[in-house]
Amino acid sequence: MKQLLRVLTWRNMLVLSVAVNFSLILRILNGDGGNSRDRPAYVSTWPVVSTTGTGSSSLSSRSCNYSEIEEDDDIIINLKLGDPTVYERYWQEMGEVTTVVIHGWQSLSYFSDNNNNLCWFLEPELGKEIVRVHKLVGNAETQDHFIVVGTGSTQLYQAALYALSPHDDSGPINVVSAAPYYCSYPLITDCLKSGLYRWGGDAKAYKEEDPYIELVTSPNNPDGLLRHAVVNRNEGILIHDLAYYWPQYTPITTKANHDVMLFTVSKSTGHAGMRIGWALVKDRETARKMTEYIELNTIGVSKDSQLRAAKVLKVVSDSCGNEMAKSFFEHSYDAMSERWKLLKQAAENTKRFTVPYFTSQRCNFLGKVFESQPAFAYLKCEEGIVDCERFLRENKKILTKSGKYFGDEESYVRISMLDRDTNFNIFLHRISSSYNANVQVHVGCDDDLGRN
Amino acid sequence: MKQLLRVLTWRNMLVLSVAVNFSLILRILNGDGGNSRDRPAYVSTWPVVSTTGTGSSSLSSRSCNYSEIEEDDDIIINLKLGDPTVYERYWQEMGEVTTVVIHGWQSLSYFSDNNNNLCWFLEPELGKEIVRVHKLVGNAETQDHFIVVGTGSTQLYQAALYALSPHDDSGPINVVSAAPYYCSYPLITDCLKSGLYRWGGDAKAYKEEDPYIELVTSPNNPDGLLRHAVVNRNEGILIHDLAYYWPQYTPITTKANHDVMLFTVSKSTGHAGMRIGWALVKDRETARKMTEYIELNTIGVSKDSQLRAAKVLKVVSDSCGNEMAKSFFEHSYDAMSERWKLLKQAAENTKRFTVPYFTSQRCNFLGKVFESQPAFAYLKCEEGIVDCERFLRENKKILTKSGKYFGDEESYVRISMLDRDTNFNIFLHRISSSYNANVQVHVGCDDDLGRN
Repeated sequence: MKQLLRVLTWRNMLVLSVAVNFSLILRILNGDGGNSRDRPAYVSTWPVVSTTGTGSSSLSSRSCNYSEIEEDDDIIINLKLGDPTVYERYWQEMGEVTTVVIHGWQSLSYFSDNNNNLCWFLEPELGKEIVRVHKLVGNAETQDHFIVVGTGSTQLYQAALYALSPHDDSGPINVVSAAPYYCSYPLITDCLKSGLYRWGGDAKAYKEEDPYIELVTSPNNPDGLLRHAVVNRNEGILIHDLAYYWPQYTPITTKANHDVMLFTVSKSTGHAGMRIGWALVKDRETARKMTEYIELNTIGVSKDSQLRAAKVLKVVSDSCGNEMAKSFFEHSYDAMSERWKLLKQAAENTKRFTVPYFTSQRCNFLGKVFESQPAFAYLKCEEGIVDCERFLRENKKILTKSGKYFGDEESYVRISMLDRDTNFNIFLHRISSSYNANVQVHVGCDDDLGRN
Repeated sequence: MKQLLRVLTWRNMLVLSVAVNFSLILRILNGDGGNSRDRPAYVSTWPVVSTTGTGSSSLSSRSCNYSEIEEDDDIIINLKLGDPTVYERYWQEMGEVTTVVIHGWQSLSYFSDNNNNLCWFLEPELGKEIVRVHKLVGNAETQDHFIVVGTGSTQLYQAALYALSPHDDSGPINVVSAAPYYCSYPLITDCLKSGLYRWGGDAKAYKEEDPYIELVTSPNNPDGLLRHAVVNRNEGILIHDLAYYWPQYTPITTKANHDVMLFTVSKSTGHAGMRIGWALVKDRETARKMTEYIELNTIGVSKDSQLRAAKVLKVVSDSCGNEMAKSFFEHSYDAMSERWKLLKQAAENTKRFTVPYFTSQRCNFLGKVFESQPAFAYLKCEEGIVDCERFLRENKKILTKSGKYFGDEESYVRISMLDRDTNFNIFLHRISSSYNANVQVHVGCDDDLGRN
């Protein structure tokens, strides 16, 4: 038997070796510069995070010797965007509980069967589940708020600008946000050269006397810090982007209760491909005008994705009442917690970069004290590295978003903490080790566009 | 037995009578002005169309005496919008063949698994089925065109404006279309007071020397006529809106082959609630910029609805190869044909209104000669009625869209031919008979917004 195993092992190694040679020859022939999406899965002998749905995220402790890692040296790790694929494994392990079946005769009408709702295209089931999950988590007040559904919170941001800007001849209103701000805000605001609104830059530097709209992203994208309005003048109109105000990212300390609050499934449950977001809006006329914008822009929002989002939110809420198993938020909290633990450890070991400091607070929902563990890590390169994005791209083959896109210095970069385990583990190894790439990395044309 | 039936009948009538009285009392107490969506189904003893999927649309010929109709006098028939619910019955009768099952772990990423496509959020299956259905029907050239998917063709219209407008300081480009034009074009174009483009009005009256964008909707919304560009200058940029260029509405005489062509499932298969449209675009840079707009506007398009649209288009194409049963287009052609036959008959009988004249042409796809039978009827009131919309609203309780919204006279109205059988039959009866409403009809705030 032992002999047989030995023979098998040698035969296996031979097959493996031939396969590797063949693959290398093909790569050389194709002149492949490295595209992460075409690559085989990464295999590591190094301690890794593994995001599972039923148990906790697991951290193997076999070894802490960084040099033992086996990785594909050519692979480019793209952490520029906040693609929330970390949640895939959880939903796979949850099986069919969130499966939806949609028949061919559904969703023919533009309208939802929701006569009494100001937002005529909102599916009633989604409206119900939005209220339920907020009540359960305690992160936002839904009472006395209208719900406006959007094709992601990006569309709702534009709907809010349309609704809150003066439509008279007073000229475009300034839209400001404290730097570092979400990199897409300036691009979205100015892309059509609107006469209703224009990007006004860093809210901290805003000195004009005119009315303005201030965006308050809390927790903030890119740095994860909790935010309040900074201009604080009477004529100020506020939009609160609360996409990340969920217990896997930050302690839920108060029930947010603002005039316009934006949320999205992309960051709460991880379903970015659905393109579903929602706004909680106090003022009836603002909600009506936001609905009007979405009617003009896309004549409503996909009914299919609304039905799916309703189902997913229902499963999330149901999981919170299950005392036998971890809830969705507990699982996601654990996953983020382990990733941040490893990242902080790496930062401490290498001294080459620092991560933001977060104070500990008690989370009313999870019932424990913890520090924020945001969806993005806002790293600062140290040791005299001026252009952190370039350093990581050229030396580590890691694509990140430079601080300059967030109205900040180039020594900062934003890194997604929501990628699949494989990519996160390679990222962690590369920034911790002496790994040094020799190949010039090509950056695609989407560099100037800032997906959430 | 006969005795028993007689007793039952009398008892049934008593129950019915009491129920009717109760309902009338409730209505009077509630001061109900009549909302069509709350009403019970309409029951008619008059000849009606009945849109079935398996057989042809059926026209009962029991009686042609209009006075025999039984209808709910209070019901308001809203035919202002092109809600394509006429297709519901067909898809119901097709059963589970278009049912989609979507699992909880699908559509998490922003990206589609489609590395080579310029439109990074297009689902490959949808792209494949778009090409297939166009090849089969022969209504548009797909070769040497890029496909850009959008949240309905409304978003694609805006994406095309963004892509085709100069982004330098030359000021907004004029966007024109020959009147009567689709009523939403001016509203969408001007709603953000863009510095890139502005509504320039009727293309036939356009005399400026500057570059311009001309919208060519063919068949046209509202009047169903086939269109060509009318300004015809060298600097002209064209967008072809071909939402209605399908064989149920008009003979397919040529394979359209333009620079930018817009389509939507709302009008081709009737799935308006999906919010899926697509553009066929010749120029790579235009397609790239349209993709960029959709990225800025909504970070892609619902993956769930794309998957459903792919399935529905597949079933439509499959039905065309089935020699044992009518195809989707044959069925839909029959349904539209019967509605138009009845409408023309009514117009001829009453003399109070006229419908546009369409020449007969041979349809390459259906292999027969017929006149256009558009999704909207563009009626002209005669007999000195100046405001046709008001006349129909006040006297017939039929809500329509006035010609003034299409850059035309108030003696015209646009009427949806795509509503459910019940509503279409009441509409037909009311305009044909001496029916005269006495109650003032309230028009909601959506009157100024022009859904497709």
